Amino acid sequence: MRIVDIIMKKRDGAALTEEELRFFINGSVSGDIPDYQVSAWLMAVYFQGMNAEETGLLTRLMMESGKVMDLSDLAGPLVDKHSTGGVGDKTSLILAPLAAACGAQVPMMSGRALGHTGGTLDKLESVKGYTINASQGELKRIIGRAGYAVIGQTAEVVPADRKMYALRDVTATVESIPLITASILSKKLAEGAQSLVFDVKCGSGAFMKTLKDAEILAESLVNTGKSMGRRVIALITAMEEPLGNMVGNFLEVEESWNSLQGDGPDDLMEVTLALCSRMLLTAGICRDPDEAMDMCRQKIRNGEGADRFRENMIAQGADWDWFLDHAGRWRAPFKVEFRAPREGVIHEINAFKIGMCALGLGVGRNKADDPVQPHTGLHFNKKRGDSVVNGDLLCEIFALNEKEACQALASLEEAVIISPDPMTPESLILKEVGEW
Amino acid sequence: MRIVDIIMKKRDGAALTEEELRFFINGSVSGDIPDYQVSAWLMAVYFQGMNAEETGLLTRLMMESGKVMDLSDLAGPLVDKHSTGGVGDKTSLILAPLAAACGAQVPMMSGRALGHTGGTLDKLESVKGYTINASQGELKRIIGRAGYAVIGQTAEVVPADRKMYALRDVTATVESIPLITASILSKKLAEGAQSLVFDVKCGSGAFMKTLKDAEILAESLVNTGKSMGRRVIALITAMEEPLGNMVGNFLEVEESWNSLQGDGPDDLMEVTLALCSRMLLTAGICRDPDEAMDMCRQKIRNGEGADRFRENMIAQGADWDWFLDHAGRWRAPFKVEFRAPREGVIHEINAFKIGMCALGLGVGRNKADDPVQPHTGLHFNKKRGDSVVNGDLLCEIFALNEKEACQALASLEEAVIISPDPMTPESLILKEVGEW
Repeated sequence: MRIVDIIMKKRDGAALTEEELRFFINGSVSGDIPDYQVSAWLMAVYFQGMNAEETGLLTRLMMESGKVMDLSDLAGPLVDKHSTGGVGDKTSLILAPLAAACGAQVPMMSGRALGHTGGTLDKLESVKGYTINASQGELKRIIGRAGYAVIGQTAEVVPADRKMYALRDVTATVESIPLITASILSKKLAEGAQSLVFDVKCGSGAFMKTLKDAEILAESLVNTGKSMGRRVIALITAMEEPLGNMVGNFLEVEESWNSLQGDGPDDLMEVTLALCSRMLLTAGICRDPDEAMDMCRQKIRNGEGADRFRENMIAQGADWDWFLDHAGRWRAPFKVEFRAPREGVIHEINAFKIGMCALGLGVGRNKADDPVQPHTGLHFNKKRGDSVVNGDLLCEIFALNEKEACQALASLEEAVIISPDPMTPESLILKEVGEW
Repeated sequence: MRIVDIIMKKRDGAALTEEELRFFINGSVSGDIPDYQVSAWLMAVYFQGMNAEETGLLTRLMMESGKVMDLSDLAGPLVDKHSTGGVGDKTSLILAPLAAACGAQVPMMSGRALGHTGGTLDKLESVKGYTINASQGELKRIIGRAGYAVIGQTAEVVPADRKMYALRDVTATVESIPLITASILSKKLAEGAQSLVFDVKCGSGAFMKTLKDAEILAESLVNTGKSMGRRVIALITAMEEPLGNMVGNFLEVEESWNSLQGDGPDDLMEVTLALCSRMLLTAGICRDPDEAMDMCRQKIRNGEGADRFRENMIAQGADWDWFLDHAGRWRAPFKVEFRAPREGVIHEINAFKIGMCALGLGVGRNKADDPVQPHTGLHFNKKRGDSVVNGDLLCEIFALNEKEACQALASLEEAVIISPDPMTPESLILKEVGEW
């Protein structure tokens, strides 16, 4: 078997066999296939796509390229949620403890901030002591105690994705549905979850800009996951403005904690409860969306969600007293206020621009090895659809220094549109794909 | 400027600017752009193509990536011919001395055998002493003496093509019209010719299998050459059976010498004279194809073509007495005869299969650094359209050993089709593209 023939076959639009895909993946991980052939193959896939069977094979073979967690001795049901990435998206931090409180077990392998999007691991690491490295044994211990664990991807898990993702990023082959599907699903399946809920973000602050593109990805994720014997639901949710009021690392952990105590902003809670209810449905804990939603709300009211949050924090090494002491208080030193320049209704708080603004404050990173700041960020007082008068406080900026604070202020002025016309924000849940 | 943005732009079908193409070519030659990005770009070009202006820019920038011969102090007119590669194609060895005898000067930069196709340099090097390495000064001296020179491409000439071709070969991106055009033309232009004639081979033994594909390449070569201020004609010629009676290195030099003395086979002379007459037209030596054809025939009759051939041989270091002594005699030791297995008319002598058969005898090479044999090969006694009776000698095989001789015999049996139906071979000149 020659790799150039495999590239040619895909280039000419044919479906690759399991044997050919295995040859390609094994060779790319071992280095026997040089990067220049891997990248030519990636570009051929970009243009020719893959059929459902190929996408499933690619996903499974990528998963099998590394270590697959065996969590079968946990009581289960094991369920996870994955988001394609947004701004201010801290739903994981809220729904994981809620799902755990409802009886699910959540082995969550999360990612880091990149570009304008935030990362769950960076948020949690802003809490003193919290560690995201855990062996399989520790993972089970944490899940056993708190009902969920949040860990980073290790080098042993899906090395094929590590290799391919690095090349896709620099060869303009990121935007390929089968490659995205296999990249996301292979990692999620390797973590041992039996059922999965995807939050496919759609809009200015998301990777998928249009509903049509989001639908294609959602369907690919659901169908490929199903073909591998998993129960999968995808919700397509709007990412036009930041989710919730906080954008920042510690700020978002704080907002999650507040949400678990019943103080969550409407938009954040709408998406969080929708996703969490689907987790309960795919996990077989509930049979009906309304029932699932009610169960989640109850776990907020009775404090069981917050208990799980605290248990997880402690199990993963966080200094809980430090957290309580810093919540509501710990902010980067330079504070600047952004106030409404005119009267009207907020029509837009552009999520992408806010993400880039937060990136400038050190919330996120441009390159994978850039450091992030724990306590910088943005605290919004008003959201889309809110009426304001001239001088109303719209947002507080917390920055490391004056220069970055001023830059963020300028970005905010660009990102926020106030108009005299009325506007009522619509539901953030745009579409549901898959069945439970 | 970032290379990933240039890849993305081409991936999305936009035309690249001169600045972007220069950034890409300079970076790929210097190594600043890693191979995996070059190959992703190549695959994007494979799918999206290039418009005429881009193809012209790519050609010029590739040419400028290395040394460009300055032959302007030669009397001229400087004209060359290039073939896309065939089997038994020794037209260069005949038309270069003929064109020189007609008053043209021919700076011919030739290639080597690869796969089933032969290479002019390997043929000439089968003659004792012949050397294809020459400095610019030596090149001028040889052309001054013989009217033409045949040299190999040095590392200094079009390094961008050297780099890109090596990657195209292993990434399934060879078959791209703009890439083929720029690769061929950049090298031809770097050798300093003012006008060019292309022989775009078409058929089983050629790179282009269909007339339509050959037309697209021919038009791309002509239009791009014209856009760079050169007079260019392309002939599309059939490559269904080997050209002439000999396939081999020394065998083909010998057949060329015989042809210059008036003993050339009809099919070989048809293509050779058609190409040579176009050289005289583009060079401005003749105004009319018939006049040009007559002039070529006259240079055979009066021996001036043969004189140029001898002068070139001697100027490039060949032992002329050795050549005359070996012509008609020097054959590899194992001779096997292929005789007609039945009565009928020869309908096919498959050029690709014959090329592969010759490759097995050591005439050609699989990899760029394989050695070739000077005196192995095939001598056909019959060609397409000839009637044969059972037992007629069709072809003599000259091999290094018995095993290779027997393998070649088996290949020949596969390649030759004899049928009771009549057949008259048509003209090998399928189409002409361009004006003089």
